[in-house]
Amino acid sequence: MITRLIPLLIFILLAYTSSAQEVSPDGVFHFGKGEIDWGYAQGRKVGNTLYVSGTVSRGATMEEQVKGIYERITKTLEAYGLTSSDVVREVLYTKDIEAMKTSNAPRMAFYDGNTPAATWVQIERLFSPTALVEIEVEARFDVPH
Amino acid sequence: MITRLIPLLIFILLAYTSSAQEVSPDGVFHFGKGEIDWGYAQGRKVGNTLYVSGTVSRGATMEEQVKGIYERITKTLEAYGLTSSDVVREVLYTKDIEAMKTSNAPRMAFYDGNTPAATWVQIERLFSPTALVEIEVEARFDVPH
Amino acid sequence: MITRLIPLLIFILLAYTSSAQEVSPDGVFHFGKGEIDWGYAQGRKVGNTLYVSGTVSRGATMEEQVKGIYERITKTLEAYGLTSSDVVREVLYTKDIEAMKTSNAPRMAFYDGNTPAATWVQIERLFSPTALVEIEVEARFDVPH
Repeated sequence: MITRLIPLLIFILLAYTSSAQEVSPDGVFHFGKGEIDWGYAQGRKVGNTLYVSGTVSRGATMEEQVKGIYERITKTLEAYGLTSSDVVREVLYTKDIEAMKTSNAPRMAFYDGNTPAATWVQIERLFSPTALVEIEVEARFDVPH
Repeated sequence: MITRLIPLLIFILLAYTSSAQEVSPDGVFHFGKGEIDWGYAQGRKVGNTLYVSGTVSRGATMEEQVKGIYERITKTLEAYGLTSSDVVREVLYTKDIEAMKTSNAPRMAFYDGNTPAATWVQIERLFSPTALVEIEVEARFDVPH
Repeated sequence: MITRLIPLLIFILLAYTSSAQEVSPDGVFHFGKGEIDWGYAQGRKVGNTLYVSGTVSRGATMEEQVKGIYERITKTLEAYGLTSSDVVREVLYTKDIEAMKTSNAPRMAFYDGNTPAATWVQIERLFSPTALVEIEVEARFDVPH
């Protein structure tokens, strides 16, 4: 009985994974179902613009979190066929802007020469009490290359 | 004498209400004249984009303010012929992000399945000392439906 | 020997000044090379949109900083052939929102009747420990005039 269910289980698993990691026909990208429960999307494409939600990452230190955040932003961009060179605007919210200044290496590696308009501010806290930094970006599909 | 002035008074009242609640030919929407004194507009349309100012609301509790804010955002969207399904980006600034987490019901009711890119941060305070939360949104006229 | 170097020095100086103050073919504007070291651009044009980085200014008081910021934003807009009437969105981050309320005169003079969508929030601190206020704007090339 269980062997007959395996293809079905594989299909459900693939369908779920797929739906969580692919851009929907209306331009929505989710990392997981939890985003729908909270009423937001990791990525949202409309016209030539890709709006990316404030992104966080696990990590014990500021630099680990910065590295993880740009990895997640990279995955988001890739889902739409974009790269870091298409990011044109960034807002970075951090609990410790001095620590952020010394943790900029993974961010510089991500942008690799691209220079978006950017704003950095130090705020009280973020959604998760352990998050040290959250980064929102806007990318465009019409950046000249 | 006063009876002869009534039609004039009604006209002035309607004209004022109308001018405060209609979108100008250059895409500007104000809730009231106070916005002009402070140099901003509740709504500003350019091309396919509607920029909505950080919106606050009176209310004794976080949930009351959240409810009031989305009612005001709804009125703003309606002035342009849009609905909550056209909101593609949101930034939510709050004085208490844990209280916001438990006050999300009016926000979820507003979005009704729509998932914008969203960023939530906890900040020190807002323009009015009694404001607990302020929400900025961006809507688009070219969201596929 | 030194006199023979003068034309070369003038050329280098002009070239450097020019590259720092002109918009590149891909829409990037820098006030100086320091921006590249930190991975951002003062201005970034894509399509009909000009994204301007959070801008700060030296100054001993809030009002001096506000005045300096809008002078720098004016220079940024001018580099793209725009004016304050093309600014459609503003986010103002300040360490003291009450002081900002009484320092609004240079901002009102800058906008001169234009009313962008605007959001003001009080945050803990900015990139430089002496910065009291930082202002991010978005301008458009398709604002009707």
